[in-house]
Order: sequence, then structure tokens, then C-alpha cells
Amino acid sequence: MVVTIIGLGLIGGSLAKDLRANGFADHLIGIEANDSHAEKALALGLVNEVKPMQEGCMMADVVVLAVPVGATVALFPQVLNMIRPGAVVMDMGSTKAEIANAISGHPQRGRAVLAHPMAGTEYSGPQAAINHLFFDKAGIICDRDQSDPDAVSVAERLLKSLFMRLIYMNSREHDLHTAYVSHVSHISSFVLALTVLEKEKSEANIFNLASGGFASTARLAKSSPRMWSDVYQQNSHNLVDVLDSYLDKMQHFRDLIADGNYDETYRLMEEANEIKRILQ
Amino acid sequence: MVVTIIGLGLIGGSLAKDLRANGFADHLIGIEANDSHAEKALALGLVNEVKPMQEGCMMADVVVLAVPVGATVALFPQVLNMIRPGAVVMDMGSTKAEIANAISGHPQRGRAVLAHPMAGTEYSGPQAAINHLFFDKAGIICDRDQSDPDAVSVAERLLKSLFMRLIYMNSREHDLHTAYVSHVSHISSFVLALTVLEKEKSEANIFNLASGGFASTARLAKSSPRMWSDVYQQNSHNLVDVLDSYLDKMQHFRDLIADGNYDETYRLMEEANEIKRILQ
Repeated sequence: MVVTIIGLGLIGGSLAKDLRANGFADHLIGIEANDSHAEKALALGLVNEVKPMQEGCMMADVVVLAVPVGATVALFPQVLNMIRPGAVVMDMGSTKAEIANAISGHPQRGRAVLAHPMAGTEYSGPQAAINHLFFDKAGIICDRDQSDPDAVSVAERLLKSLFMRLIYMNSREHDLHTAYVSHVSHISSFVLALTVLEKEKSEANIFNLASGGFASTARLAKSSPRMWSDVYQQNSHNLVDVLDSYLDKMQHFRDLIADGNYDETYRLMEEANEIKRILQ
Repeated sequence: MVVTIIGLGLIGGSLAKDLRANGFADHLIGIEANDSHAEKALALGLVNEVKPMQEGCMMADVVVLAVPVGATVALFPQVLNMIRPGAVVMDMGSTKAEIANAISGHPQRGRAVLAHPMAGTEYSGPQAAINHLFFDKAGIICDRDQSDPDAVSVAERLLKSLFMRLIYMNSREHDLHTAYVSHVSHISSFVLALTVLEKEKSEANIFNLASGGFASTARLAKSSPRMWSDVYQQNSHNLVDVLDSYLDKMQHFRDLIADGNYDETYRLMEEANEIKRILQ
């Protein structure tokens, strides 16, 4: 199968590595707006060749959009115009409702499958691509009923070839639940990093004390501003809602400490401990 | 050397494992108020024997207090009364000023060394003990000038035997900097878990979407309420200060998203990205 990947960063590059390794793709074509990323991707052997947009899309059995969600909204309808009959276009975006909107009513809508692999690291660019990034993670397919059954089946085969666990949602539900679980985690991490950078003026102290929990909790604060600005924009409504809830809880926790109510902080931490069981 | 460890949980148990493995301790004695923990620690072979408080302290060359900081404040002066001449008592607490206070003016103050290994996991109890927990982490010694030079030297040898990187602070500085870097990380993680548990009613969604950043950012929310309640209590002043700063920044971030100011969220995320360089 010929797979064309648009965007050879962390997700696109990791996808290329695994789809080659597991034999799903016989031939990998990259499309990349950033010339230095394109060169790096070729040097790393992520794809067989890099092509211009139209040519790369016309050659593909499957086109995968692995660019920030703002660019996905702009490109998806164009790509659907370029593919040959029977080909499939998938995206990998962290938001879904605006993307679904952008291709709604498109004559080729049935060839599009909206997907979101719940996988990533805090790094970006082709050099961040790693093997097995998607292994045993959830692979979400949205609005399945809007896609042709054979297109869904190709997308499912691709995700299952990476050993992803398939989950189905509609795009609005998806954006709500990812705001509640994934997007808020990134913001709490960015805000933690900003707070520590402001309060702790000694970089040596940050480095030395980081092993006391900061390093892992602030890991996501290394993530790409480009990717996440787009996510905030496309999911602002759900995000503001969950951030308001987060702010209430943080204010409450702060007040309990200020008031010396440690029985209640104890109880709240026991409640939070519940995630041990859920994440097992 | 005979090392007696009071508290055979994550820290005490891991210490026992490594001090036996590296030959620092010839004989390990455990003191443990919780009978089932004592049994588990013996079954796991963490210590050679478990003794009552007085007997265990009298036999030791070094006594290590590895209990929550509330218990450390209560026990430290008593333990100093029990040791034989020339023995050393160290604690492993995450706060320092109140502990320093509790032994200030004690006739045996010179035999006490205040230490804090910047190491841990989100698990607790003897079964959480692991090898190499302390390897290449910062080992902080506080108020070094208050301890006898030979006692400091024993404590340094113990920490260095674990390959810890020694750092010196006074106890007030210590509490400020750990609030700024480590303690706030734990609270942001507990609050994240509480928020997600409230907003996301589907445990299956939490589990499936957790690989999108939640699992690592909320990892510390699995930590021991007992340990952390004590820390909040002993470091409330510094914590309220850093939490106020965190709340301001989170409110600002939330408002930027609500107002659609994504240039500014982009800029703030770039600022947060600075921790990549610092933690390298």
C-alpha cells in the first residue's frame, strides 16, 4: 500500500517508522512544507521520497494528515479533491469538531476518516519520531457513519496494524472528553512550568529539585506551542469549562492549606488516589 | 556499620535495599509502628530484624528517620535521647524548618543531620521499595553548621554511597525552594486528578484518554495523603505563596483562551518551553 503522510513531525514521522516496520506500507511518501524538516526526514529514512502536495496525494492509497489542527482544517478539503478514486484520507488531529465541519458536505466526505491516536511525547519535529509510539494506545475514530464503510475499514486496519485499541465517538463528544482528560493536563503542566520559572530564580535549584516530582509533572510543558495553540482555538469552549472547574478546586485546596484544614486536604487526596484504580 | 531505619515504607525500604547492596550497612534493623508493614519488610528481606524503638536505636551506628514529617518532629528528640555516644541520627523529611526547630537546643543536637533525598515514586509502603531510587538524585543536607563535623561526614558518606549529588542549604531556604519546585507539583497533580474525576464521569474514557498526557501529569496524585498532609502543614506559608502565583497564572491562561488571544498563549508556552533547557 502507498501511504502519503502530510507533516513529518513527531506523529507523522513515528507513523512512517511503524507502518514501514510492520509492512502496512510498501511505499511511503512525505509531504512537508518545512524544507529542513523534509531533508531531515529523508536523512532519517522516515519516508522513501518527498513530493509536492498534489503529486503526493495522487499517488496514495491512504493519505494521513499529521499537521497541527489549524492546518488540518485548511488542507483536508483540498486533499479530498486531489486523491484518486477509492483512496482514503485520515487525519490525526487532537480536536475533531471543526475538522468535521470543514469537510461536511464535501462530495468526497465518504473517503475521509477522522482519527485521533492518544499517543505522543513532549518532543516535536522529524527527529522526535520514535518506534512503537502508538502501541497499545487508544485510537479514536470519530463520526464513523459519515465515512464510506470501506474507507473506515482501511483506517481501522491501519490503526490496528499499530496495535492500537479502537474506540468510536462522535466528534463533539471527542472534543469534550479530550478537553476533560488530555487538554487540561497540558495546560496544568504549562502553568506549573511558568509558576516555577517565576518563583524559583535559581536554575540550579530547579534542576536539582526537579526529581522531587517537578520533572514528570512539567514534562508536557516542553510541548509544541504551535500544536497546542491550534488545539486551544478549536476547543476553547470545552477548555474554559474544565479550567473553571480546575481553578475552583485549586482555590479550594489553597484555602484549606491557608486555613489549616488538613483533615480535608487528606480526604481530597484520598479521593484523588482513586485514579490509581482507574489507570491500572 | 549497623543502620537502623525507622519507617519501612518507600523511602526507608529503598534505602535498606541499596545500603545492603552497596555494602554500606553490615546489619540493618527496622523499627516500624505498623505490624503488617513490619512483617512485609521482613518477608521482603529489607532488614535483618525488626526491633522495638529503644533497642533498635541503641544498637545503631546510624539511625535514619524515614517516617512522615509530623512523626519525625515528634520522634527526632526522643531518638537523640536513645542513641549511644558517637552514633548519628538522620531524617529524610520533605520539610526541614519545623524539624530543625524540634531538635534545636537538644543536648545531642550535634549528632543530628537533617537530610532530604530528592527521590521518590507515587507508591508507598514496604512493597513500594525499589533499588537505585536515589541514584544520581540531589541529596540535600540542611543546617550543616549545627551538626558535629564527624556526624556530617557519616551522613555524607551514606548519601554518597547511593551516588547522590550533595547539596547544602539552610532549613528555611530548603522549605522555600521545595515548595516552589516539588510541593507545588504534587498539588497541581492532585488537583488535576480531582478535576478529571469530577468532569469525566466515564472511567473508561479516563483510562482510554490517559495516554494523551493525563497519566504522567496526574502520576503524583497517587501519592500518600498521610505523607503530604504533614508536608502541607509544615510548609503552609510557602505553599500558599506559590499556589497564589499558580492560581494567577492559571486564571490568566484561562482568560486568554476565553478571549481568543492565542498569540499570547503561544508566547506563554514558548516561555514555559524554557524548562527543556534547564532540565537537560
